[in-house]
Amino acid sequence: MLYDLVIKNTIYVNLFTHEMYPAQIAVQSGRIAHVTQPGEAELTGVWEYDAKNKFAVPGLIDTHLHIESSMMTPRYFARALAPRGTTTVCADPHEIANVMGLKGIQYMLQATENLPLRVLILAPSCVPSVPEVETCREPFGGKEIEWILEQPRIAGLGEVMDYPGVVADAPRMQEVLCAGRKAGVFIQGHAPDLTGEELSRYLAAGCESDHETHRVEEALEKLRAGMVLEVRHASNCYDLERLLPLLLRLDCLENITFCTDDTEPGDLVEHGHLDEMIRIAVKGGMDPIDAIKAATVNAARLIRLRDRGSLRPGNLADLLLVSDLHDFRPDEVFLGGELIARGGNMIREDKEEKQSYPNTMLLTTPIRPEDFQVPAHGPSVKLHTIAYNDDNKFVTSLETCEFPVENGCACIGNQADFSLFAVFERHGRNGSRALAPVHRLGLVTGAVATTISHDCHNLFVAGRDPQEMYLAASTLAATGGGIVCVEQGRVVFQLELPLAGLMCDEPPQVMAQKLEQLKEVLSRFGLPGHTPHMMLSSFALAVIPAVRLTDRGLLDTIRQEMIPLYAD
Amino acid sequence: MLYDLVIKNTIYVNLFTHEMYPAQIAVQSGRIAHVTQPGEAELTGVWEYDAKNKFAVPGLIDTHLHIESSMMTPRYFARALAPRGTTTVCADPHEIANVMGLKGIQYMLQATENLPLRVLILAPSCVPSVPEVETCREPFGGKEIEWILEQPRIAGLGEVMDYPGVVADAPRMQEVLCAGRKAGVFIQGHAPDLTGEELSRYLAAGCESDHETHRVEEALEKLRAGMVLEVRHASNCYDLERLLPLLLRLDCLENITFCTDDTEPGDLVEHGHLDEMIRIAVKGGMDPIDAIKAATVNAARLIRLRDRGSLRPGNLADLLLVSDLHDFRPDEVFLGGELIARGGNMIREDKEEKQSYPNTMLLTTPIRPEDFQVPAHGPSVKLHTIAYNDDNKFVTSLETCEFPVENGCACIGNQADFSLFAVFERHGRNGSRALAPVHRLGLVTGAVATTISHDCHNLFVAGRDPQEMYLAASTLAATGGGIVCVEQGRVVFQLELPLAGLMCDEPPQVMAQKLEQLKEVLSRFGLPGHTPHMMLSSFALAVIPAVRLTDRGLLDTIRQEMIPLYAD
Repeated sequence: MLYDLVIKNTIYVNLFTHEMYPAQIAVQSGRIAHVTQPGEAELTGVWEYDAKNKFAVPGLIDTHLHIESSMMTPRYFARALAPRGTTTVCADPHEIANVMGLKGIQYMLQATENLPLRVLILAPSCVPSVPEVETCREPFGGKEIEWILEQPRIAGLGEVMDYPGVVADAPRMQEVLCAGRKAGVFIQGHAPDLTGEELSRYLAAGCESDHETHRVEEALEKLRAGMVLEVRHASNCYDLERLLPLLLRLDCLENITFCTDDTEPGDLVEHGHLDEMIRIAVKGGMDPIDAIKAATVNAARLIRLRDRGSLRPGNLADLLLVSDLHDFRPDEVFLGGELIARGGNMIREDKEEKQSYPNTMLLTTPIRPEDFQVPAHGPSVKLHTIAYNDDNKFVTSLETCEFPVENGCACIGNQADFSLFAVFERHGRNGSRALAPVHRLGLVTGAVATTISHDCHNLFVAGRDPQEMYLAASTLAATGGGIVCVEQGRVVFQLELPLAGLMCDEPPQVMAQKLEQLKEVLSRFGLPGHTPHMMLSSFALAVIPAVRLTDRGLLDTIRQEMIPLYAD
Repeated sequence: MLYDLVIKNTIYVNLFTHEMYPAQIAVQSGRIAHVTQPGEAELTGVWEYDAKNKFAVPGLIDTHLHIESSMMTPRYFARALAPRGTTTVCADPHEIANVMGLKGIQYMLQATENLPLRVLILAPSCVPSVPEVETCREPFGGKEIEWILEQPRIAGLGEVMDYPGVVADAPRMQEVLCAGRKAGVFIQGHAPDLTGEELSRYLAAGCESDHETHRVEEALEKLRAGMVLEVRHASNCYDLERLLPLLLRLDCLENITFCTDDTEPGDLVEHGHLDEMIRIAVKGGMDPIDAIKAATVNAARLIRLRDRGSLRPGNLADLLLVSDLHDFRPDEVFLGGELIARGGNMIREDKEEKQSYPNTMLLTTPIRPEDFQVPAHGPSVKLHTIAYNDDNKFVTSLETCEFPVENGCACIGNQADFSLFAVFERHGRNGSRALAPVHRLGLVTGAVATTISHDCHNLFVAGRDPQEMYLAASTLAATGGGIVCVEQGRVVFQLELPLAGLMCDEPPQVMAQKLEQLKEVLSRFGLPGHTPHMMLSSFALAVIPAVRLTDRGLLDTIRQEMIPLYAD
């Protein structure tokens, strides 16, 4: 038989028997047709490719990520991943869904067609993350989820973040899970610190996996209970390193997959993607075959993908050639039998072209300077305040602080260690907006406005000077969204993100440079670190303990109750 | 929380982490609600059961068997399996389908409802095994398969035996496989000795597994290619013992399941079922956890059963308590949280009651004495003859033998080492019937008639004396089917099988005794061995090399061409 393609002189990494042996790999119509076993005759192909004794492994599969976190539109995101050997991703578009509703899902489905990366979409299960305490474009209930699950290329239900709702049988989560179970699809979990009988309730409701596990004991409990661990290595979260000691001592790694969740362009460009996870795992002592299986066989099994994850005949001919399994760097990437990348670069770069996107900056009334002032009478006013710990910029608590009053307004940002947060609803829904003092954030100067603000992605502003905050916010409001930094009264950084205020058409290298500039600015402002923009985008996240600001006001995220600004 | 049932003091065999530790198992509404981990508090149940430190494992799952082979109707079959710890079976009803067509499938679906055994049905892919060379009730094409796949409790497409048809893109198999792939269901293979590029074609067509592998090298090739090995231990085939050396040296056993295919009642009563396979595997050196996983986790994965195969919360509460993992004998069997068997016996025996079944003995014309005579002229006649090897009662070859003629008929059965086969179409289709001489079968005396005759289950008769053959056949024809033995001119054994001529309502113990009697009779006739009745039922099987007799006449099973009886 004359095959379309025969890849000769590979060392085949057999993930079924854990053997490696010289083999030829035949491809027909984009699928694996045959992999020779020792002793078989030479195969003949229309195209014959010499693998020069490199290892042949299946293309890598990421079981959980958000394309939006890269701030790149899907086609640019694909360019960053494909040369790294990732050939399939399971993407939860819940960021764009909060901004654009079902239209966002439709957009992601269209925008991920015919890319050099196979993108499966999950139906976002929690839009918004917590109903009734913040405003998104269009909340998803059972009906919306059912509609999404009927679309092509939908892999299941995306991370079920409202685990308290699942455990408590909240009607919204029952509806959403019922739709997922009825469709018989993969239901992806998200259950940090869930334990004991509550963990069992979460599993029994159909949630199969978790990517929020940081601790070895927590990971062991979840695996023992039958959960699949989607071990994460994100730009802002290094669970793989933390969990590796457990992975090394377990006899059974069937229920381990790898995922990246949120990765910024700089990390993609500099460090890579799942290839980096395999390098970290193997360097840490994991058997290369076990590490590769986590990113292939096990991943495909979790997502119910029966046509990939291994080089079984009939599967998609997505495969990598790698020189060294202990320093896993794909030299060649084949997608459907086509050589799409070599030496870490795409073979054929698409021409650069920026597309136009529907405007999602839908403020119902203009932003005014007084939106950044807290009106008050008398010599001072007591306000409820979001307080940070000095050593943890993620968890907050509630403080009641007293501020001097001048000209009918509380003086907040000019007090030592205090700054301000503001949130403006931007989905054309109700024009709600809120302001609150913040203690010990670390912000020393400047103001920053962003439309990347989990999960509803309303317009968020942080700063110390109301005038600078106004300049940042109004500059951003005049665009389709993005990030604006103001320092000493002028705009010093601006990144436009015309797609949903979350993404733009820029290549990974360009985005990496822009975010490097942003980091420098934010560092000067007093927000240092590897991913200050990611931290910034979580300041309004309504599911993190204990106090957050949404467009509706201050929120007790544990009780899910609004807190009045004035403490008197 | 107060659970329906808490099983206390178990040693939980955790198949996810390969650990064992003391645990309590909570059941709610027939499903696993929670399994405690070390350090958890005592659970409380309405019913609390003391496991007395026995090992708790999931109920066992057989991925491939034929209920018909037990000759018992499903409810009696279930009684034999349930006390042995098998809680789910994947049954291919292709025997009854050959006799009753789609009505046979409907019957099996009805008859397997509400049993103490969960029965999933596969759509038989090859009814009849080879079209156009034998007569079944109703051949199945794509349309019939599609109809079956839409019924509830259908697990997929049953063993795709026509592997030459698959490899050669035969239209019937393309239709059938297309229906299976479209439905996205499990497609079970059957591919003895298939190798190399043909094996790859078979896998690429969607066939996932094989239970016909006898040799270690063959098993290794299939596993390397990505096939799932359904390792078999049947009454007439001991593959598990043969393949154990490979299982012991493999690093990865994810793609190994256990199945029993065809088991006779005596073996079920005396030796057991999957529990016996686990005992054999563990005695042979396999790790008990690997052996248990083959019969639970791996089996559920192959058949796409997401609600069993492990004790994950939400799964069906099908579980076993076992005192010794190295001599695996389920002491207690729970099905859906109900204790259904203890100490190898059902807790509650259903009352015995024989049901009535539609008659499937549909001969279009009566059987006559002359049906067992070969008319001939002259002093002798040359006839094409089925010839057995002395040492292999399975494979045949074609011989041309010369027989004396007396009274216008060939003298066959009274020649040394010769006997006769006859086949009568019994499905009310065309009344076809055939007769042929047989060499070296070993039959010394007697005649036997049976309606269990793979795969079309026409009325088959073997004997040496035409009058005895006529007596056996006509006695059987007067019933709804079964087995009749005639010795020295009188009926010495009769087993009625009113359901499709294949099964009857008798408990396993009774059936075991009856078959013991049959074995004694057949042994006297010259057909000794552990399962002579199984050998008997394969004498007309049109897919075994090289010459068989069907209702249409002598068949060259390799070329699939009819052979004339007269060789002149």
